Amino acid sequence: MVAHNTFGTSFCFTSFGESHGAAIGGVIDGVPAGTLIRMDTIRQALLRRSGKGMKGVSPRAQREADEVEWLSGVTADGIALGTPIAFLIRNTDARSVDYEWLKHSYRPGHADLTYEQKYGVRDYRGGGRSSARETAARVVAGQMAQQLLADRGVYIHAELLAVGTTTDPERFDDLLRQVQAAGDSIGGIVGCTVTGLPAGVGEPIFDKLPSRLAAAILSINGCHGFDYGFGFQSLSLLGSDLYMADSRPADPLSEQVRTGGIVGGISDGTPIRFRCLFKPAATIGKLYKGRHDACIAVRAVPVVEAMTALALEDLWQREV
Amino acid sequence: MVAHNTFGTSFCFTSFGESHGAAIGGVIDGVPAGTLIRMDTIRQALLRRSGKGMKGVSPRAQREADEVEWLSGVTADGIALGTPIAFLIRNTDARSVDYEWLKHSYRPGHADLTYEQKYGVRDYRGGGRSSARETAARVVAGQMAQQLLADRGVYIHAELLAVGTTTDPERFDDLLRQVQAAGDSIGGIVGCTVTGLPAGVGEPIFDKLPSRLAAAILSINGCHGFDYGFGFQSLSLLGSDLYMADSRPADPLSEQVRTGGIVGGISDGTPIRFRCLFKPAATIGKLYKGRHDACIAVRAVPVVEAMTALALEDLWQREV
Amino acid sequence: MVAHNTFGTSFCFTSFGESHGAAIGGVIDGVPAGTLIRMDTIRQALLRRSGKGMKGVSPRAQREADEVEWLSGVTADGIALGTPIAFLIRNTDARSVDYEWLKHSYRPGHADLTYEQKYGVRDYRGGGRSSARETAARVVAGQMAQQLLADRGVYIHAELLAVGTTTDPERFDDLLRQVQAAGDSIGGIVGCTVTGLPAGVGEPIFDKLPSRLAAAILSINGCHGFDYGFGFQSLSLLGSDLYMADSRPADPLSEQVRTGGIVGGISDGTPIRFRCLFKPAATIGKLYKGRHDACIAVRAVPVVEAMTALALEDLWQREV
Amino acid sequence: MVAHNTFGTSFCFTSFGESHGAAIGGVIDGVPAGTLIRMDTIRQALLRRSGKGMKGVSPRAQREADEVEWLSGVTADGIALGTPIAFLIRNTDARSVDYEWLKHSYRPGHADLTYEQKYGVRDYRGGGRSSARETAARVVAGQMAQQLLADRGVYIHAELLAVGTTTDPERFDDLLRQVQAAGDSIGGIVGCTVTGLPAGVGEPIFDKLPSRLAAAILSINGCHGFDYGFGFQSLSLLGSDLYMADSRPADPLSEQVRTGGIVGGISDGTPIRFRCLFKPAATIGKLYKGRHDACIAVRAVPVVEAMTALALEDLWQREV
Repeated sequence: MVAHNTFGTSFCFTSFGESHGAAIGGVIDGVPAGTLIRMDTIRQALLRRSGKGMKGVSPRAQREADEVEWLSGVTADGIALGTPIAFLIRNTDARSVDYEWLKHSYRPGHADLTYEQKYGVRDYRGGGRSSARETAARVVAGQMAQQLLADRGVYIHAELLAVGTTTDPERFDDLLRQVQAAGDSIGGIVGCTVTGLPAGVGEPIFDKLPSRLAAAILSINGCHGFDYGFGFQSLSLLGSDLYMADSRPADPLSEQVRTGGIVGGISDGTPIRFRCLFKPAATIGKLYKGRHDACIAVRAVPVVEAMTALALEDLWQREV
Repeated sequence: MVAHNTFGTSFCFTSFGESHGAAIGGVIDGVPAGTLIRMDTIRQALLRRSGKGMKGVSPRAQREADEVEWLSGVTADGIALGTPIAFLIRNTDARSVDYEWLKHSYRPGHADLTYEQKYGVRDYRGGGRSSARETAARVVAGQMAQQLLADRGVYIHAELLAVGTTTDPERFDDLLRQVQAAGDSIGGIVGCTVTGLPAGVGEPIFDKLPSRLAAAILSINGCHGFDYGFGFQSLSLLGSDLYMADSRPADPLSEQVRTGGIVGGISDGTPIRFRCLFKPAATIGKLYKGRHDACIAVRAVPVVEAMTALALEDLWQREV
Repeated sequence: MVAHNTFGTSFCFTSFGESHGAAIGGVIDGVPAGTLIRMDTIRQALLRRSGKGMKGVSPRAQREADEVEWLSGVTADGIALGTPIAFLIRNTDARSVDYEWLKHSYRPGHADLTYEQKYGVRDYRGGGRSSARETAARVVAGQMAQQLLADRGVYIHAELLAVGTTTDPERFDDLLRQVQAAGDSIGGIVGCTVTGLPAGVGEPIFDKLPSRLAAAILSINGCHGFDYGFGFQSLSLLGSDLYMADSRPADPLSEQVRTGGIVGGISDGTPIRFRCLFKPAATIGKLYKGRHDACIAVRAVPVVEAMTALALEDLWQREV
Repeated sequence: MVAHNTFGTSFCFTSFGESHGAAIGGVIDGVPAGTLIRMDTIRQALLRRSGKGMKGVSPRAQREADEVEWLSGVTADGIALGTPIAFLIRNTDARSVDYEWLKHSYRPGHADLTYEQKYGVRDYRGGGRSSARETAARVVAGQMAQQLLADRGVYIHAELLAVGTTTDPERFDDLLRQVQAAGDSIGGIVGCTVTGLPAGVGEPIFDKLPSRLAAAILSINGCHGFDYGFGFQSLSLLGSDLYMADSRPADPLSEQVRTGGIVGGISDGTPIRFRCLFKPAATIGKLYKGRHDACIAVRAVPVVEAMTALALEDLWQREV
């Protein structure tokens, strides 16, 4: 009966808020007392998520001003108290908390339908939670985790690896413009690399590192695939290509790349590398009025980093 | 390393906020969509907790105006959306979120000391969470649970059973006035009765009904004891007094009272009865300037109801 | 719908087994690799639980030979591997796993009734789990926790404080013999002291140390009350008796005893002291054939230690 | 510090056992009382996992006789009691629980290394858990979940979709024989279809259906990728290909296939379809003595079904 909105069991993030309600926000439980929260870095990540100045991004999204209001757990100087950190981001274009909009929100191909199927027929149940706006709260919480990880030398970097079948970054902008002009949408791949993660992160059996990473990443709207190391590309390889000395590349870094930094579900101390597949968006200009994102992978980049950080910090705190 | 601030695994309440920060509040996950939230009942419970017009209560507490601001999960008409319900109560007498006060907050006999020991020496760690003010958020969340339970015919009623060794309600006010005038403090017992709870609530082994109730109740500031049925009073009885027909009272209701409504850790369908012991408050007028509560059990009554409701609704949702 | 049989979130004990099935046992997740498990200490604790040579204990219980068989997680030398430690204790007097006995097991005043109410009418649901035999598995798991705690200088000692209203240990045996001879039963108090626990154990808001201890203790069959520090006895005291220098005892240890070693829900570094109330057993000789325990508190002593250890080790592992 | 070995929060499976210890096994908490456990179906699934009679499977694996011994929670007739179901499978070729083998178990490219890095240097920590033998316990638990699901009309079917880049099933045997003869290994894809799952399974935000499925699947040894719907293949499609009427296939079933049965993280009532990528095994004949699996995807098929069932039944029980 319950919709759980908390991620993590040691470093916990509880998300709340509907896209047309008063505010979205969250509660972060697990930031150690004394941690300096870098507010400017959070603002930058929110700006990246808004897609400002990027090609193929809905103009409405770019207008959003995501101002974070801190409710508890942090001093005016940005020092964490060790208590739950609660924050909110007001929905500036929401006139009131009247949720009138929910009455006319059933768009084919959207989560509206399954929310309706899940929560019942006559109510507005679940409405406004499936909006990508909710990911702004994840970016704030993810930044907390990213800062804790960075303080230990762990860095997370995500980037757009492919737009459709195109993998040449220099051609991305042209392709996105073209798809948007056609009122169409296209899929994409976000790649993510984690450096500095020590060996030993990940539980041996069920909460393996790839299990937690995939769970985190596949909770992002529109994400339909996850792989690490050679992933689906390993189909064209034999074990001897991967593991035998005479066929392995000489460069030790590349050698490690074979595993994606994970062996037996546990980090091996080399860079973690994984890929996230975002499908073509269902909301396409040919079907709906207004302008939409041509490729949701573009703005998903900071959200991939955020969810990666939440998964890693939670596993980290379980280990120590 | 983490301080978990969530109660419940199915019906979940996450509490946040420091007494001198911007706000206290919480997130409630598990109120079914379509539930009508009775805002006036919540206001009344908050008023009861503030102790307005009660004897032996700190005047400062009585001044507090606990205005709830709803952030998500509920329409302007008070209809739950099935999404997380987030709310806050501003700390009206807090000038800013600067936490300057934390520097001079170590009062002997208070949680300040153990918080300090737990979180470290130089920081203000954990500060302001140990204040009884945090219980206002519990009352709001507890009211949600109480309303869900009441809709199924389950009613929770707590009341003051004893002030010190006095059990005659007509003498409570006099005694409280007298203790307060002396700048002293006194312990008390809050009794709680739950009617309408069907048989079968409670897990067989570890999350027995009394285990969950006691965990909930002993999380209230100043509560140092819990018992149910005859509890500590059963020491003066023999098994034959309790269980043999010829020595049992004739009235079937009283007969059930023997068990406190719980057998083998599971509700048996008769009224649940338990007692909560509140110790004399450490903050006594003889030691500290300002006026304090003569007996913390007085204002704890709605908090006992709130925590009972949170425990019961959580167990209920696990069962169904 | 689910009956959770796991205690703890970091140091986890999963209990299984019915009293008349093939075996009882458990899985312990959280014993660090390399820990030496002292098998003899486990055997002694199981012997204490069996009540061998004690007054007022059912002869049948004294016959039980609780032989632990280790299935995983520990070498023949008793070294923990860091993997889940699974063990079983065969039910020697159970002829087969046919559960025929379940058909005639409804004794008034027993958990049989509420189990029936909870799990349905025609099945044997939950049967055999409410037996005190299940506590043997807790004693094994609790010993693991006790050994981990002892290695850090934390010692748990429980003892019988009262049989009925009698608190003089020298009179216990006579009283127990007398009650048993009369075919009756009597309540008792088990007191527990934890020494060597550092300050800082316990979560600030909901998983306070007394919350977790009470939840653990009240999960023991027949336990109907819990208090710490002065507990219910503080009703006859004023705050000035407890907290003012001129009325406090001179001895620093006694001084700390006021708090029971817990302030604000967190250990303060002084000995933890709490009491567990066991009601007169429902199974009394006057009602049932066979001989029964005159006072269940007697054999509960090592179970109180076990549950205390499970609660403390779990909180400890959450902190570190 | 802790290695959690439990999957699920409502329907819970705790796994234990090392490949060279006394036994592997598990505890299943959440099978409703009265459920008939079909023992023959469990035996068949274990047989499928052993790879008996299959091409490219290690002969040693085929010798294993996985006899399940039931310890609790189920009658001799296979009726669940509603209590935890504990079972074990003895390691017949393990002479004793002496774990001597752990001293010489560090094979390059295996989990041995990361286990070592995680648990320390001098001990055998974690050893024997990374073996694929542990998946036998998953198959038993998964069968319980599959039977509960099947009783509600939900069927799970996994099959080998690709061996390397070959997708023609008729050519699989030849290819496997060839790879094995060469002492090499090759990757593969297992596809899984779930039919009969009603709309509404999956949590809206973090425990989305694909999040839980991916977490379950990526916990299987050697699995390095997961996608659903068109997944990684959607890179060659535009939104208009997927969502516009004139370009969509006429057949309503195929139409639904676009989403993989999941919209907004929640099942939409159409068949769920996802793919699992298994990398070429590190243990290849060219490197190690003995004969090994040419393609671990082959024997992973029943394990994919098992983990899918565990994830679905757990989400199901959370919903109801």
